[in-house]
Amino acid sequence: MISPITKKTAVKIKKLEIQGARNIAIAALRAIEETARKSKAKTMGAFLKEMKQNCEVLVKSRPTEPAMRNGLNYVVKKLSNTKHVSDAKGLVRKGCEEYITLMEHAVEKIAEIGSRRIKDGDTIMTHCHSSTVMGIIKKAWKDGKKINVICTETRPRFQGRITAKELVSFGIPTTMIVDSAARYVMNDVDLLIVGADAVTADSFIVNKIGTSQIMLAAKEARTMSCCACETFKFDPVTLSGEWETIEERDPKEVWENPPKGLKIFNPAFDFTPPQLVNFMITELGIITPYETGMIILERYGKVV
Amino acid sequence: MISPITKKTAVKIKKLEIQGARNIAIAALRAIEETARKSKAKTMGAFLKEMKQNCEVLVKSRPTEPAMRNGLNYVVKKLSNTKHVSDAKGLVRKGCEEYITLMEHAVEKIAEIGSRRIKDGDTIMTHCHSSTVMGIIKKAWKDGKKINVICTETRPRFQGRITAKELVSFGIPTTMIVDSAARYVMNDVDLLIVGADAVTADSFIVNKIGTSQIMLAAKEARTMSCCACETFKFDPVTLSGEWETIEERDPKEVWENPPKGLKIFNPAFDFTPPQLVNFMITELGIITPYETGMIILERYGKVV
Amino acid sequence: MISPITKKTAVKIKKLEIQGARNIAIAALRAIEETARKSKAKTMGAFLKEMKQNCEVLVKSRPTEPAMRNGLNYVVKKLSNTKHVSDAKGLVRKGCEEYITLMEHAVEKIAEIGSRRIKDGDTIMTHCHSSTVMGIIKKAWKDGKKINVICTETRPRFQGRITAKELVSFGIPTTMIVDSAARYVMNDVDLLIVGADAVTADSFIVNKIGTSQIMLAAKEARTMSCCACETFKFDPVTLSGEWETIEERDPKEVWENPPKGLKIFNPAFDFTPPQLVNFMITELGIITPYETGMIILERYGKVV
Amino acid sequence: MISPITKKTAVKIKKLEIQGARNIAIAALRAIEETARKSKAKTMGAFLKEMKQNCEVLVKSRPTEPAMRNGLNYVVKKLSNTKHVSDAKGLVRKGCEEYITLMEHAVEKIAEIGSRRIKDGDTIMTHCHSSTVMGIIKKAWKDGKKINVICTETRPRFQGRITAKELVSFGIPTTMIVDSAARYVMNDVDLLIVGADAVTADSFIVNKIGTSQIMLAAKEARTMSCCACETFKFDPVTLSGEWETIEERDPKEVWENPPKGLKIFNPAFDFTPPQLVNFMITELGIITPYETGMIILERYGKVV
Amino acid sequence: MISPITKKTAVKIKKLEIQGARNIAIAALRAIEETARKSKAKTMGAFLKEMKQNCEVLVKSRPTEPAMRNGLNYVVKKLSNTKHVSDAKGLVRKGCEEYITLMEHAVEKIAEIGSRRIKDGDTIMTHCHSSTVMGIIKKAWKDGKKINVICTETRPRFQGRITAKELVSFGIPTTMIVDSAARYVMNDVDLLIVGADAVTADSFIVNKIGTSQIMLAAKEARTMSCCACETFKFDPVTLSGEWETIEERDPKEVWENPPKGLKIFNPAFDFTPPQLVNFMITELGIITPYETGMIILERYGKVV
Amino acid sequence: MISPITKKTAVKIKKLEIQGARNIAIAALRAIEETARKSKAKTMGAFLKEMKQNCEVLVKSRPTEPAMRNGLNYVVKKLSNTKHVSDAKGLVRKGCEEYITLMEHAVEKIAEIGSRRIKDGDTIMTHCHSSTVMGIIKKAWKDGKKINVICTETRPRFQGRITAKELVSFGIPTTMIVDSAARYVMNDVDLLIVGADAVTADSFIVNKIGTSQIMLAAKEARTMSCCACETFKFDPVTLSGEWETIEERDPKEVWENPPKGLKIFNPAFDFTPPQLVNFMITELGIITPYETGMIILERYGKVV
Repeated sequence: MISPITKKTAVKIKKLEIQGARNIAIAALRAIEETARKSKAKTMGAFLKEMKQNCEVLVKSRPTEPAMRNGLNYVVKKLSNTKHVSDAKGLVRKGCEEYITLMEHAVEKIAEIGSRRIKDGDTIMTHCHSSTVMGIIKKAWKDGKKINVICTETRPRFQGRITAKELVSFGIPTTMIVDSAARYVMNDVDLLIVGADAVTADSFIVNKIGTSQIMLAAKEARTMSCCACETFKFDPVTLSGEWETIEERDPKEVWENPPKGLKIFNPAFDFTPPQLVNFMITELGIITPYETGMIILERYGKVV
Repeated sequence: MISPITKKTAVKIKKLEIQGARNIAIAALRAIEETARKSKAKTMGAFLKEMKQNCEVLVKSRPTEPAMRNGLNYVVKKLSNTKHVSDAKGLVRKGCEEYITLMEHAVEKIAEIGSRRIKDGDTIMTHCHSSTVMGIIKKAWKDGKKINVICTETRPRFQGRITAKELVSFGIPTTMIVDSAARYVMNDVDLLIVGADAVTADSFIVNKIGTSQIMLAAKEARTMSCCACETFKFDPVTLSGEWETIEERDPKEVWENPPKGLKIFNPAFDFTPPQLVNFMITELGIITPYETGMIILERYGKVV
Repeated sequence: MISPITKKTAVKIKKLEIQGARNIAIAALRAIEETARKSKAKTMGAFLKEMKQNCEVLVKSRPTEPAMRNGLNYVVKKLSNTKHVSDAKGLVRKGCEEYITLMEHAVEKIAEIGSRRIKDGDTIMTHCHSSTVMGIIKKAWKDGKKINVICTETRPRFQGRITAKELVSFGIPTTMIVDSAARYVMNDVDLLIVGADAVTADSFIVNKIGTSQIMLAAKEARTMSCCACETFKFDPVTLSGEWETIEERDPKEVWENPPKGLKIFNPAFDFTPPQLVNFMITELGIITPYETGMIILERYGKVV
Repeated sequence: MISPITKKTAVKIKKLEIQGARNIAIAALRAIEETARKSKAKTMGAFLKEMKQNCEVLVKSRPTEPAMRNGLNYVVKKLSNTKHVSDAKGLVRKGCEEYITLMEHAVEKIAEIGSRRIKDGDTIMTHCHSSTVMGIIKKAWKDGKKINVICTETRPRFQGRITAKELVSFGIPTTMIVDSAARYVMNDVDLLIVGADAVTADSFIVNKIGTSQIMLAAKEARTMSCCACETFKFDPVTLSGEWETIEERDPKEVWENPPKGLKIFNPAFDFTPPQLVNFMITELGIITPYETGMIILERYGKVV
Repeated sequence: MISPITKKTAVKIKKLEIQGARNIAIAALRAIEETARKSKAKTMGAFLKEMKQNCEVLVKSRPTEPAMRNGLNYVVKKLSNTKHVSDAKGLVRKGCEEYITLMEHAVEKIAEIGSRRIKDGDTIMTHCHSSTVMGIIKKAWKDGKKINVICTETRPRFQGRITAKELVSFGIPTTMIVDSAARYVMNDVDLLIVGADAVTADSFIVNKIGTSQIMLAAKEARTMSCCACETFKFDPVTLSGEWETIEERDPKEVWENPPKGLKIFNPAFDFTPPQLVNFMITELGIITPYETGMIILERYGKVV
Repeated sequence: MISPITKKTAVKIKKLEIQGARNIAIAALRAIEETARKSKAKTMGAFLKEMKQNCEVLVKSRPTEPAMRNGLNYVVKKLSNTKHVSDAKGLVRKGCEEYITLMEHAVEKIAEIGSRRIKDGDTIMTHCHSSTVMGIIKKAWKDGKKINVICTETRPRFQGRITAKELVSFGIPTTMIVDSAARYVMNDVDLLIVGADAVTADSFIVNKIGTSQIMLAAKEARTMSCCACETFKFDPVTLSGEWETIEERDPKEVWENPPKGLKIFNPAFDFTPPQLVNFMITELGIITPYETGMIILERYGKVV
């Protein structure tokens, strides 16, 4: 039985009325919580079936959204040893609350942890615009560390400009470069921090196109590099061998009026292998990139 | 004694009325040839002094132009064992002619040699716009090789669009990517060819910003990479420890209206170390990148 | 007290009447299950002692067989907090069943997970003959992916021919090369999949001689490489510092009639360090090679 | 309420009357045990508060001492689900005993495990003086393995001489080199073993200055390298982004009477990244360097 | 005018009545010498034309034979500044003699030079069978150096057995391995010596399939590696961008009766890039692999 | 016929009455010049024989002195096409003068060239004490560049203290570290400059023990590294396969009173492979490390 709130939420997600990883996850969790609360299931079997069906509808409304998927799995996993529907309803409510709180605190926690890795006088480099990374840099600045930031412009959408504007508005000394100039200045960088859209079970970081290239240049120069990422972006479906799909975006982003016959390939993300990353900043703390698989295994259990 | 033609040419170069490495070199050589021809010097000492003074004026009109500098040195070096002014005048004329011919034939020769390294079905990647590289690609295409080309857009000036337009106009299947996507597609590339603005005595390639980053990604992927470059771009002043100056260009190229307080660093070139380059395509033939120093030593002699 | 079934099974294993990692493990587990069922021990102390003695006899019948060793340890470990012999007998039975099921499902599960990492049109390379790897390739083929496979001949025993025959019999386009040609064709390979005979606590993969050499060539070429391996091959004795023994095999395998005086060194396996492996395909899911130690620690507990 | 024993112990630690990682940890644990035993707290809340205050005083007496910090955390963490003060007191006593035993057994265990990785005839290299490493080498020697050891002199304090003296007194063939000669002899080394003062959550090894340089040379030569280290040196504060402070020591250690105006930089330790380490020898067993973060996470819980 | 001796020789080469790099080169040189001697050309123009036509016929009789091609070019190049036919005839005779002597002495010279790089007690590894490499090893052995040799069997044609037999017949302690075991034993090797069939202008070594893989393993282990090669195998056509063709040999060599449908790829050679080679042993002396291009340029002149 | 001056000079060199590479070379050249001047040889054959005999005596007086050996070879090589003794005597005199002048100017020239590679604000690192390197640093300082220098202490003989004293006496801000701290500070270094005692034909740099280790750390950190070296230290005997002997020095240098039974290995030099060196600063100009072989070949001719 698909509940009215599930249906409504799924539609809103599909129509992009709800968007942004965290907003989508919150909406889905609230839908499942209401579904559980209003459920008329008499037996645990029936209740579980209902939960799973509703989750499936929500997940299908945006398949490549690990934060939502992980949230729903987190809630459902709690029910495995429960015997009574009433207990189960309580666990669903508790699970949803926990997960939302987790997400809300994660960015804050990462800012706190990550900023400790920035030293007074450091030159930080970042790529694209990540609010998680911004949180770290701003926290370090507020703590009185005199840092300066080099940010790429991030073609084709220039998200680096958002980063630059925000940093400058805080008074943080900021230098912008074209993406291609990253290796050129790398020897002057103390810490390269990038965000992530997803992290796979085999520890590849999925982030804005160009990330892997800059991380490679950092490794060559022995510049410390890291990825700041909430663990709810660790994607358990990759445990089962699924591969993150790289969105291919509109060629117009690259060139408004290209000559006829020209093909433009415009991937949104790339994969950074773990050997190019020195450490991960997560809300659990600083970990090595190789530990994401264990955390996925522990949190979401084995492959179904 | 600075001749009228030297003065006139130097002014035109300074005012950018003459531009482009080859055009500048040709104009300077013609100026020096006329100066020699009309010289009234009676002794070799006087003639040599005059030649050197005129060369100096020309070189100073654009100090970072190795093609012109090399051309003038090539001519003057011929005079070292000459005893009579009349012989010397002949040698200047001969030297100028030889050098101009050398430059004229070099691009053509490189196209011929380089195209042999392209196999039917190859995917070629290039960065920025280099007429030397274009010559190679077009020769391979004319020879009936079914290739396709991936070109970067080359921020901030989008010279990759010139490359793309030209290739498409020839009917060559071409795909454009943003600079950041180079590593993403590298495993599908058979040969990466870049040009050069200058090559140093210790074999660093000076080319459009981003070159070293793409070459690094090619090395990581064991993709064959090369640099197509006329030897008159090998810069003998680097033998003496001079370092190529990297032009820092107008920030407006990167962002027309940046927020107040933002610094934009916009270097035009970067350095690619020889260990990232598999081979060089020169008009002398295919050589390794490590041989540029020997060629400079042999051609221009020791450090003065 | 060594039970009759233990004695009988141990003899059969020693005499190679039972062979193959999985068959040996199953026979040993069935022996221990029967031993437990028929045990006349009155106290847990006596029962545990009996179990351990019987396990020891079985393990000693083939010391370098991690699958059997792990299975017996898995069963015995379950008894640690049990107070009554009757409960313990139940746990032994349950443990044996679980472990056998685990092994039976593991290969199937790995085929399912691993095949998801193969894309339509991929060129797969493999070395030697591994039924785990074959499972993956055949699953991908059944799922309609148009792949082709490059297999080495695998000197000295030509196990690659078994691989080739099997693949060709399924209609999968297959190319054979001599072992030495692996690096030559590596740039055309999309995914290199090898199996494993054992994986150590410090994450070295023990597999057919030549594996590490091919994996090194894959790393150099940025070709994705992985190892498909059931976790019951992760060897807990390596946690205690024991090192996998590399079997040295009959020189006749290499050269039937060698000249007198020639020494032939014929190791059966080699060690591939984790930095040459991109990911592991296990029945738990895709993990990084560095996580084997944690899985051993968690599953088999600390060093005894 | 700070107990008299806590106060007394803290003073002794500050005054260096108690020194050495293990001695400090034992003294602190005994202080906290006595404090707990004599506590007059009526409620768990009060008891817990008292415990934490006393721990804080002890930790502050020497902030960069992970062994003590970990020991106290180990004890306090045990109290999280306890409801009665009497139970809690028992748990504190048990925790202290467990931890002291753990430390006492760890070095012994590591000697046993590590020595198994040494083969008859091996050449071992070590740097500085580590009793953990010495334990391994001496165990291997006692077990009859004919090894020989190369030890650096370890400037500026010549701790390598302590190592050399001790090894020679055992009759172990030993060769000393200056620190700079490590790469020169590396191709003749079978196993490089270093100790650790601390290991961070992102798996950097903090050890005597020069360690990272020698480990780099080992990696270049594919010489097996490892770090022998009790897990109580894994530092959980690094999980929160804290960075180990590298002590800068007296310049006189380097040069007694330097010329006026000369600055001498004399760091005591350096950081070795995990990619330069093949494996860790801990009392839990052989693990990869990348697993330290997971062990910290599991043992000490999340970041507070 | 094609001379009778040229015609006859060309036929013999085509029919494989003359074979082996050196024999072919000698026959061709003798043919051109006789042609010159008997020439009836009156002018230098006519003589030169005749020489070139005859050379062309000879070269075309076996196009991928650098030793012959180089020899003929060596002779013809001598004529460039000659004015009289009689002088030219003398130069041809002199050139032929010089080149034959050069080839005859080269192997001997390389044995002498190369053997100096072998130290008493060294373990040498080699791949395939190269008389140049054999010369080095045998010279070292005759000089009383107690060495031992590891040789690969070299699939698919087992040329390693020729190497093994020859070494054993000299009493040199020799161990054979399958090709795949090279990396396994590499840490025990002091010097890896391979031969070459050709060396390109960009310093890639063309040698028996598997060479690049073994050289890669040597580099990873910091084992000194070198290539022993007469400079007449340096191929000047690669200067012009021509690429050495890799002969694809009969699949039967790999598997006599393969299953129907199986493709067998059997390349005879591979390319080793110069960064995997420490030094070259040539008859000119020890050089780095990067100097082949300069030697080709100097010896054979610019690209025609 | 060995001349009196040759005999006298050889004795002085043997007795160390003349020492230092340049002084020895100058003395030997003056001896040979006097020998030539006073020669009573009537024929070129006799004269040449006399010259070679005298050179041999001088060379044998100190066999591992490339500067002297090269100087004498330089002089003798000039005589190869001479027909008259009187001309030959002139050539000997001229050769000696040229070579002495070359040596005298080389250090100065290198200072000039090398200092151009130092930029205002650079941090320079050096190892041991090299007057060639000091010349570069002092020239840069005199030219007004605000640099600072990090120097190692250079165990066991503390030559780094000579470097430090000299730099401080010039007012150059200088920091000393122990050799082991090089990698620790490497990310802050802009240019690492080392000297050389000899350079081999295959481009290995022979310099103070520890050089290769520091160069490796520089490469890892993409810190620019170079070697400053007069070309008369390029050693032509290495062309013939001879290997530079590494002097093993008195153990007392490492430890005055070592415990009985301790072996101390104290090599004076190590080998740095060319791939760890970005460029060479020679009096001919900046070259890559791979060009030393060509310069040896050109200057000293082929292997005899």
